[in-house]
Amino acid sequence: MKNDCCAIILAAGKGTRMKSEKPKVLAEILFKPMVGYVVEAVRKAGVEEICAVTGFMSQQVEEYLDTLGNICYAHQTEQKGTGHAVMMARTFLEEHKGGNVLVICGDTPFMTANTIRHALEQHKSEGNAVTVVTAQVENPSGYGRIVRNAAGISKIVEQKDATVSQLQIHEINSGTYWFQIDALLQMLDQLTTSNAQQEYYLTDTVDLALKQGWYVGGYTACTPDIILGANSRKDLHQLSEKMRQKVLDRLFDEGVEIPCTDGILVSPDAKVGADTVLLPGTILKENVVIGKHCVIGPNSLIQNSTLGDRVTFNASQCYDSVIHSDVGIGPFCHIRPNSEIKSFVHIGDFVEVKNSVVGEGTGISHLTYVGDSDVGQNVNFGCGCVTVNYDGVHKNRCTIGNGAFIGCNTNLVAPVTVGDNAYIGAGSTITDAVPEEGLGIARARQINIEGFAAKKLAGRKLKYHPDEK
Amino acid sequence: MKNDCCAIILAAGKGTRMKSEKPKVLAEILFKPMVGYVVEAVRKAGVEEICAVTGFMSQQVEEYLDTLGNICYAHQTEQKGTGHAVMMARTFLEEHKGGNVLVICGDTPFMTANTIRHALEQHKSEGNAVTVVTAQVENPSGYGRIVRNAAGISKIVEQKDATVSQLQIHEINSGTYWFQIDALLQMLDQLTTSNAQQEYYLTDTVDLALKQGWYVGGYTACTPDIILGANSRKDLHQLSEKMRQKVLDRLFDEGVEIPCTDGILVSPDAKVGADTVLLPGTILKENVVIGKHCVIGPNSLIQNSTLGDRVTFNASQCYDSVIHSDVGIGPFCHIRPNSEIKSFVHIGDFVEVKNSVVGEGTGISHLTYVGDSDVGQNVNFGCGCVTVNYDGVHKNRCTIGNGAFIGCNTNLVAPVTVGDNAYIGAGSTITDAVPEEGLGIARARQINIEGFAAKKLAGRKLKYHPDEK
Amino acid sequence: MKNDCCAIILAAGKGTRMKSEKPKVLAEILFKPMVGYVVEAVRKAGVEEICAVTGFMSQQVEEYLDTLGNICYAHQTEQKGTGHAVMMARTFLEEHKGGNVLVICGDTPFMTANTIRHALEQHKSEGNAVTVVTAQVENPSGYGRIVRNAAGISKIVEQKDATVSQLQIHEINSGTYWFQIDALLQMLDQLTTSNAQQEYYLTDTVDLALKQGWYVGGYTACTPDIILGANSRKDLHQLSEKMRQKVLDRLFDEGVEIPCTDGILVSPDAKVGADTVLLPGTILKENVVIGKHCVIGPNSLIQNSTLGDRVTFNASQCYDSVIHSDVGIGPFCHIRPNSEIKSFVHIGDFVEVKNSVVGEGTGISHLTYVGDSDVGQNVNFGCGCVTVNYDGVHKNRCTIGNGAFIGCNTNLVAPVTVGDNAYIGAGSTITDAVPEEGLGIARARQINIEGFAAKKLAGRKLKYHPDEK
Repeated sequence: MKNDCCAIILAAGKGTRMKSEKPKVLAEILFKPMVGYVVEAVRKAGVEEICAVTGFMSQQVEEYLDTLGNICYAHQTEQKGTGHAVMMARTFLEEHKGGNVLVICGDTPFMTANTIRHALEQHKSEGNAVTVVTAQVENPSGYGRIVRNAAGISKIVEQKDATVSQLQIHEINSGTYWFQIDALLQMLDQLTTSNAQQEYYLTDTVDLALKQGWYVGGYTACTPDIILGANSRKDLHQLSEKMRQKVLDRLFDEGVEIPCTDGILVSPDAKVGADTVLLPGTILKENVVIGKHCVIGPNSLIQNSTLGDRVTFNASQCYDSVIHSDVGIGPFCHIRPNSEIKSFVHIGDFVEVKNSVVGEGTGISHLTYVGDSDVGQNVNFGCGCVTVNYDGVHKNRCTIGNGAFIGCNTNLVAPVTVGDNAYIGAGSTITDAVPEEGLGIARARQINIEGFAAKKLAGRKLKYHPDEK
Repeated sequence: MKNDCCAIILAAGKGTRMKSEKPKVLAEILFKPMVGYVVEAVRKAGVEEICAVTGFMSQQVEEYLDTLGNICYAHQTEQKGTGHAVMMARTFLEEHKGGNVLVICGDTPFMTANTIRHALEQHKSEGNAVTVVTAQVENPSGYGRIVRNAAGISKIVEQKDATVSQLQIHEINSGTYWFQIDALLQMLDQLTTSNAQQEYYLTDTVDLALKQGWYVGGYTACTPDIILGANSRKDLHQLSEKMRQKVLDRLFDEGVEIPCTDGILVSPDAKVGADTVLLPGTILKENVVIGKHCVIGPNSLIQNSTLGDRVTFNASQCYDSVIHSDVGIGPFCHIRPNSEIKSFVHIGDFVEVKNSVVGEGTGISHLTYVGDSDVGQNVNFGCGCVTVNYDGVHKNRCTIGNGAFIGCNTNLVAPVTVGDNAYIGAGSTITDAVPEEGLGIARARQINIEGFAAKKLAGRKLKYHPDEK
Repeated sequence: MKNDCCAIILAAGKGTRMKSEKPKVLAEILFKPMVGYVVEAVRKAGVEEICAVTGFMSQQVEEYLDTLGNICYAHQTEQKGTGHAVMMARTFLEEHKGGNVLVICGDTPFMTANTIRHALEQHKSEGNAVTVVTAQVENPSGYGRIVRNAAGISKIVEQKDATVSQLQIHEINSGTYWFQIDALLQMLDQLTTSNAQQEYYLTDTVDLALKQGWYVGGYTACTPDIILGANSRKDLHQLSEKMRQKVLDRLFDEGVEIPCTDGILVSPDAKVGADTVLLPGTILKENVVIGKHCVIGPNSLIQNSTLGDRVTFNASQCYDSVIHSDVGIGPFCHIRPNSEIKSFVHIGDFVEVKNSVVGEGTGISHLTYVGDSDVGQNVNFGCGCVTVNYDGVHKNRCTIGNGAFIGCNTNLVAPVTVGDNAYIGAGSTITDAVPEEGLGIARARQINIEGFAAKKLAGRKLKYHPDEK
């Protein structure tokens, strides 16, 4: 399919009713721009060559599309209709002469690869110049109706021009088409702006093709969802809900346990193993893989990370990291990018890990920051430990050996090494290497001063007065 | 309108089915007592002079109404009907003789200013003694039906007294009225308790007025929501949901992005800029203003605070504070009252700020408490820093100059000053001023003791045994 | 009832469509396995003697049932139908000869004690050999239809064998039965596998009983919910939602305020006092008791704990602990097992308490860990305090007297005692007892080094450059 077909994605619109400074095709459904879904469907259908027609805030649109790779652009400086948008891609079309082109809107996130593929198959087998992708909808009001005859499509009638009997038609134009490129190039020259809006309409190609005696076919998608787009924030929310339900249904099918779906947002690309439980308020953003028998949530956020099996991840957040199997995390942890938490690690409450490797069986129970560190196996961090990784100018690393025991409220001032099975005394600031099985300690001697509190006591206000009760 | 009209709000009821020790009119819809909505609508309609008739737990009701200012009270010690409640406000009425009075229930949070205003306009233009505010409802069962004739209203018929054809009437009495005060005073003397409940009914004024040959009109509100009240906790929840949806719809219209509304509770007075995203579990309590292009949530709570543009506020809480533009906060932060976070500040995880100013570009990345402090620009807080603002008797302030670098796990014992560009060594407790560009350090020397761990090692249980795998 | 009745719970199934490695009856509805609800209903109906027929992963099922106490087991190694499952319990039946046995599926969590009890009453009063518990359902498709005659039930017809008129029957077999044990034993011998599935069907007992001239009755449950089970994760989610709504409705009736139910999961056994507010994202797992006038949530999790009246519990988690009245907790706290927080305690943000008693009026405001400690009344913890309860081998306790003042960033190295009204200087590591009203301090002297920062400053990158704005 590669060599004879390509796609033009219409991505120039503003979406005024969104009240946004972002272009409409970048409005997000479950953390992915709508046009991202369209590109994905097009590629999954086997169409590799893509030209996006950009206009409103083209730079932002192109920056995003660049992250998807291998898309070229045509620029539409004026908003003069869908036909005009396609004209802007004339160079791209000429490069693909002899083939077929898909024309598709960039804001239809529920378009499927199957629809695109099957429409192309019909387009080819019927030898059509134009194949309109259509949908059967319950309420066709406002859409262009598909008028068919024995040979295919005879007309697309807009709502305002439709006869009473045409208004009864429930098959509508989705706005997606396959064209023979040579035919399209010829027809683009014949499009005019002789209409109320003074725009070039791509739908006019149906008439033009029929006048040439070419075939015009209609491929009816198996679901009307393919036409869904968003013109307002409320529409966008409703598309999000629909996508969200679709993802949740897939997870249910795959054996994921979700007692209550409230506040659970899962990116369509997430993989979650069977018997894993998702609790309310769990957000899985892009590129998340979670193993089996985990408990994720409540109120957790994971992005671009991989979790093994039997991980407990409670009320925490994790970004760009790997957590191996049999790890317990939370509540209230923050795993920042580039961390690797190995098996049998326990991370408790109010712990941040960043850009570090934490070895098997290590425990970081509370109120601790492990940053830019290489931590061995079976290390025990006390409460309030800090890897001092920044001296105001440079970031440096700490290396902590297997079985080390790091006392509470200690600083490890990087770069520094703690040997295997070494101890650090509570309250120490460690600036020099601690040898294997040695004790490192930096602590002032305790002194007690009797009677110190007497004068203080006078001024204190106590919250609880047992006698007053 | 000021001088010739006033309002009596009926706020004496108990609401037995609520099973509450709070009076019913204080039951809250989105963090505001129901009677608060009523006062707001009355005032927005231009009615300044308000008398609330209180009864059940009158002190609590009056304490709340006092916070709204300028409301006087009449006291109803017995629950003897709506007519009796109005009688209690006789002195208030006599002070406003010659004018018109609105009588309205304190538990109708969806009453609108427009309804009140338009009803008064009709009341005056028709020269009515009584104008009943009515609503067209789908299911009128249980409500008093409005029987109309050419001249206006001829009768309000209670459900149990209605004929078969009267039961078909869908226009009902909302329980809100405008009265000519002089007529009302005269009619109050004529109300009797000759009915099954042995109570004084305000609805009897319709008959009394007609007997006097006075006009009785009906103003039909444009939405039936104005009658909505709550008799049970479930009712209350349903009103909350309705109010919540109304607020969310306004936010959508204003360009706010809400991918999933679960757990999002926004006070009706909140202002949120376009292109700001609200994630699940976000609660915006009263008096919140948020700028454009922010990301708020998930699971965040903001009360009585102002946020600028492009603020990221992740899984955190903020009270009575100001956060300027381009600030990143969270996850897991707590901004307590009277804080001002200036632009380009980054506050990371497990940080509390209280009653402090944090200057532009300052970073407070983790596990730190900044309280009662004036922090300059571009200050870098390490992890585990504490402003020691309380000595058991007094609270004192810390002053930290621009560009200062505060080492990890340090105490700044207030009152203390850290000069511009000064350094504090990690693990120090600073009690004296640190000069500009100086280093302040208070640290014991590290000593290492070889072989210390040998005896300890014997007793330790390791969590991870690579050989057993 | 004790001596003449017993129950067989069918708990051998796999539930293939669940895609689970757990047996189906252990699938959870609001944190409790389905079979747990069944056992509860059976016991509440007064049936004490229970035999569970286990099969798929019998060990897991029996481990759970053992926690409920006093259940014996029969083992079904092959899945050969419901009749075969009951055959496996023959010994149990013979031990209860002369009595009646309830046969019930282990995956019907909405079965009620009343249904079981009333069915037994009818079973006995009608002198039935078999009493089928039936339900009237809106959509009977797929279920066995109950064909009645004057004497009781004449037949149970499976969907595929039903006549057109039988398909109209809306009374269906729930799969729950009461049998006279002697009759059942006789009939078990007569069951055959002469059917399409080659399984032993318990429904065949209806025919067998009638052939013997015994009575077969049908008891119609007052709600069709008793038949609800789950074959897929989506079913399970729907049962959870149904159970959740049931619990929420009970809470509303009892005077609990829930402005928005999103993300609120409450175990059916939870007790919550009137005027308590539950905010979104609140999870109350098993065995939770909460008093009156509390505010719980948002985003809080409480398990197996008791809270008094007027407790504020904000964005925190609590396990296996007791919190007395008038306590404020959170946001972002973690109360771990075996803690007792007495009245008028304030616990602020980022605090962990574990296995400790915290006395009346004590304040633990921020970033502190109190573990294995006995804390007196009116103690003030500064920020960053740590009870160092683990030396790598042993856990030890700290004892802190009434009115003690613990400075910021201090360690109390257990075992250690801080006397009443004693002070601990900020930044100290305390290893020895501090006397009553004494000051304990362990701190290096501060030194200032002038001009230190000069060379550092050159390398620093500032985030905020006022001149560039």
